[in-house]
Amino acid sequence: MAAEKITSRSQDYSQWYLDIIHRAGLAENSDVRGCMVIKPNGYAIWEKMQRALDRLFKDTGHVNAYFPLFIPKNFFQKEEQMAEGFAKECAVVTHYRLRSRQGKIEVDPEAKLEEELIVRPTSETIIWNTFKNWIQSYRDLPLLLNQWANVVRWEMRTRLFLRTAEFLWQEGHTAHATQQEAEDETRQMVEVYRRFAEEWMAMPVLVGPKSEGQKFPGAVYTLCIEALMQDGRALQAGTSHFLGQNFAKAFDVTFQNDKGQREFAWATSWGVSTRLIGGLIMTHSDDQGLIVPPRLAPIHVAIVPIGKTDEERDQTVQAAERLAQALRDLPRESFFDYEPLIVRVDKDFQHMPGFRFAEWELKGVPVRVELGPKDLAQNACVLARRDMGKEGKQLGVPLTEAPARIVTMLKEIQSSLFAKARAFRDRSIHQANSYDEFKKKIEDGGFVMAHWDGTRETEDRIQEETKATIRCIPFDRVKEAGQCMVTGRSSEGRVAFARAY
Amino acid sequence: MAAEKITSRSQDYSQWYLDIIHRAGLAENSDVRGCMVIKPNGYAIWEKMQRALDRLFKDTGHVNAYFPLFIPKNFFQKEEQMAEGFAKECAVVTHYRLRSRQGKIEVDPEAKLEEELIVRPTSETIIWNTFKNWIQSYRDLPLLLNQWANVVRWEMRTRLFLRTAEFLWQEGHTAHATQQEAEDETRQMVEVYRRFAEEWMAMPVLVGPKSEGQKFPGAVYTLCIEALMQDGRALQAGTSHFLGQNFAKAFDVTFQNDKGQREFAWATSWGVSTRLIGGLIMTHSDDQGLIVPPRLAPIHVAIVPIGKTDEERDQTVQAAERLAQALRDLPRESFFDYEPLIVRVDKDFQHMPGFRFAEWELKGVPVRVELGPKDLAQNACVLARRDMGKEGKQLGVPLTEAPARIVTMLKEIQSSLFAKARAFRDRSIHQANSYDEFKKKIEDGGFVMAHWDGTRETEDRIQEETKATIRCIPFDRVKEAGQCMVTGRSSEGRVAFARAY
Repeated sequence: MAAEKITSRSQDYSQWYLDIIHRAGLAENSDVRGCMVIKPNGYAIWEKMQRALDRLFKDTGHVNAYFPLFIPKNFFQKEEQMAEGFAKECAVVTHYRLRSRQGKIEVDPEAKLEEELIVRPTSETIIWNTFKNWIQSYRDLPLLLNQWANVVRWEMRTRLFLRTAEFLWQEGHTAHATQQEAEDETRQMVEVYRRFAEEWMAMPVLVGPKSEGQKFPGAVYTLCIEALMQDGRALQAGTSHFLGQNFAKAFDVTFQNDKGQREFAWATSWGVSTRLIGGLIMTHSDDQGLIVPPRLAPIHVAIVPIGKTDEERDQTVQAAERLAQALRDLPRESFFDYEPLIVRVDKDFQHMPGFRFAEWELKGVPVRVELGPKDLAQNACVLARRDMGKEGKQLGVPLTEAPARIVTMLKEIQSSLFAKARAFRDRSIHQANSYDEFKKKIEDGGFVMAHWDGTRETEDRIQEETKATIRCIPFDRVKEAGQCMVTGRSSEGRVAFARAY
Repeated sequence: MAAEKITSRSQDYSQWYLDIIHRAGLAENSDVRGCMVIKPNGYAIWEKMQRALDRLFKDTGHVNAYFPLFIPKNFFQKEEQMAEGFAKECAVVTHYRLRSRQGKIEVDPEAKLEEELIVRPTSETIIWNTFKNWIQSYRDLPLLLNQWANVVRWEMRTRLFLRTAEFLWQEGHTAHATQQEAEDETRQMVEVYRRFAEEWMAMPVLVGPKSEGQKFPGAVYTLCIEALMQDGRALQAGTSHFLGQNFAKAFDVTFQNDKGQREFAWATSWGVSTRLIGGLIMTHSDDQGLIVPPRLAPIHVAIVPIGKTDEERDQTVQAAERLAQALRDLPRESFFDYEPLIVRVDKDFQHMPGFRFAEWELKGVPVRVELGPKDLAQNACVLARRDMGKEGKQLGVPLTEAPARIVTMLKEIQSSLFAKARAFRDRSIHQANSYDEFKKKIEDGGFVMAHWDGTRETEDRIQEETKATIRCIPFDRVKEAGQCMVTGRSSEGRVAFARAY
């Protein structure tokens, strides 16, 4: 493998991002416009994310199900805002057969569908159309469902993981007997996302509602988790929508309450997607390559035996294999989602140790073990942390103690990555007290906390003039009366603006 | 819940199958033609299947990846047999936008794709088009990939789980440097499927090649696992294809071998789908409802506390909760794929015990614990096996011993279900020595082993005249020279015929 250089972040952040994805084997563009191939190293991260999220969903009472990929066109007619929000960018199936004519494959004009089908951009409509048959009485509620699926939105400008025509996600859809219960669910799920972002991804987030201008089409309101990338741009990382009775009314989903009256059901939906992988990369990685927090790492430990002679190599490989097995045999624990540690022994003696170390760094493996003849003579090894340079190395670690030390190190890396990302995020939150100050600060990146009058017009004007949007109205913002930086009208607290992905 | 009666198998097997799916809440037809909704109880079985299969794939060196949902039409042009086999039944995307005109949503005629996209019926073409960029040298091989995905085939007559327009599956795709290695992989994966079918699903299968007439379009040959349902019809449960160099040639995938020469890569593909859930139902279930083997059961144990007074109910519920927790806290073991036991405590005191027992039987939960005041007075409970009647009950089981006894019982149920299904399958394998005898025996259902001359014409004629097809040429068939029952031409052994789903 030729060691192509990764563009440095300071030189070109966008190119650095693509270089990481390319060199770490995470994904690539396919020959299908806007659709990506998620390569094994990228998909392995998604699998870890899925496992952790799925457990969090199940622990909060949700079950998985699967609904059709296709949505009849008329379903979009039923919920106006949805049609507005999604109809402009969707894949439309119009025929159900190809035919061969003079050696050319072509669409069979006789196999035209009576009604066109849309490849789901999101599944509220098909699911609420189904709920109609599932919900009769308050005893049938709540319905707490989740679906792992692919969805398609015909994006014009795409970027790997962050914005692609097809992507993978989970979409939760719940139905409730009362508004309060649905609102509690909306809040609970954004809190699940916050926990996942912070405790698994080690990615700090702001949590709170979106403004009207940024909410989901069809929602009464949208809660979100909002992260900050290293280049100072924000990333919407997950959303949880309170849908009110909009979909129940559109699809006529009523239930008999405990007083015998018919009522429309209350709805939520919430989702995160493979976009999180983009967020993960841009939160932690550096100019040497990918950095993955241990709880989501597809490979936890790479052991690199070193030797010049065949005998040295045999002996260090054997010791490496024994250590690997000891690590795999450790009791399963909740920190690692009850999965065994994944350990690789690197037998690539064709390359120099420095090259091999760099390859594991590039791939983001949290802990590297170096094991040469001199180490082995002392029954010891060297532990190296991906998130630190030489100062993070532990020399002369006895092999018998290595498994426990490695587990401790993995846990330290997890919390250290979070602390580092949080410190960066916190020092990237600025305040602006005038529109001029805002315009200057927004150029420097990060979140800019400013007063806003709560109207859509002002929000739109700010976006037009500065390319910044309201990312989040944080739950934990300080209550502080003020005046909108643009109109001077009264405001009850600052909101978080940023330029975003 | 009204206790609608399940149609008995003897009365109407097809209706019995649909009744089970309906009453156990496994799936239903959607309003999208041919597409099903997989309901939570059905999806939970699929999740257990996925987890076990995924582990088997990874233990044999495979990694997961994800390729686009859409396939450009011209890709079908490149592999002739594929186009023949799949072009007749596919969903074609022709437009990428809807528009609103006078309040009606319609396809925007200006948003027509330059080249139509096909919703994948299977992914060989898009994957081999991608492999072209991944494979340069023999050092890049083998590539051992798997994908969990949805696929679409425009089936005209559909049946829940067994044949639907959209279904979920996994598709393995591998590339190798030598024919031998690819053939070994093909064989290894059908063996993985046999293990899964027999050891997890408790469903015995015949294993061997398909005839030419039944193989996958594009394959050199197809290996399969073939099961027998209770009504005597066969079910193709999994296939593993040796694809030769067909796809490498179609997509120009060559590599430099260790002698510096360019060669085409060798391919396999293999898959199982949500169809397995249909097979699971029709292998084990009975007129009382679903039966799920413990290794795939979404719920392992239902504990039914019983009591007339509030005090009795409180006490038996408390004891039930303690037992449930003890079961959940048991050490994770490989038999259960390292998942904790899933236990439900049934607090539905509105219904009589008999009704509650029947509900858990209907849902297929392997072990039911009954816990009434008299049992509790003795610190004991009753264990009931879903796969047996009263003779399977264990009375007066001390509560302290119950967890261990339940684990033992779950393992016994697993092996007992397999033994029962195998005994049924074995006594449903018949021999026919003349075409007349064959025609009679095929009416009775089961596999009929008969001599065949190996030609496509004879196979087609038999199918036309008897609706039976060659299901499998079992690896373990007895070598036995004979004469084709139809043409009298020589045959080197019997093949397995059946009418199939």
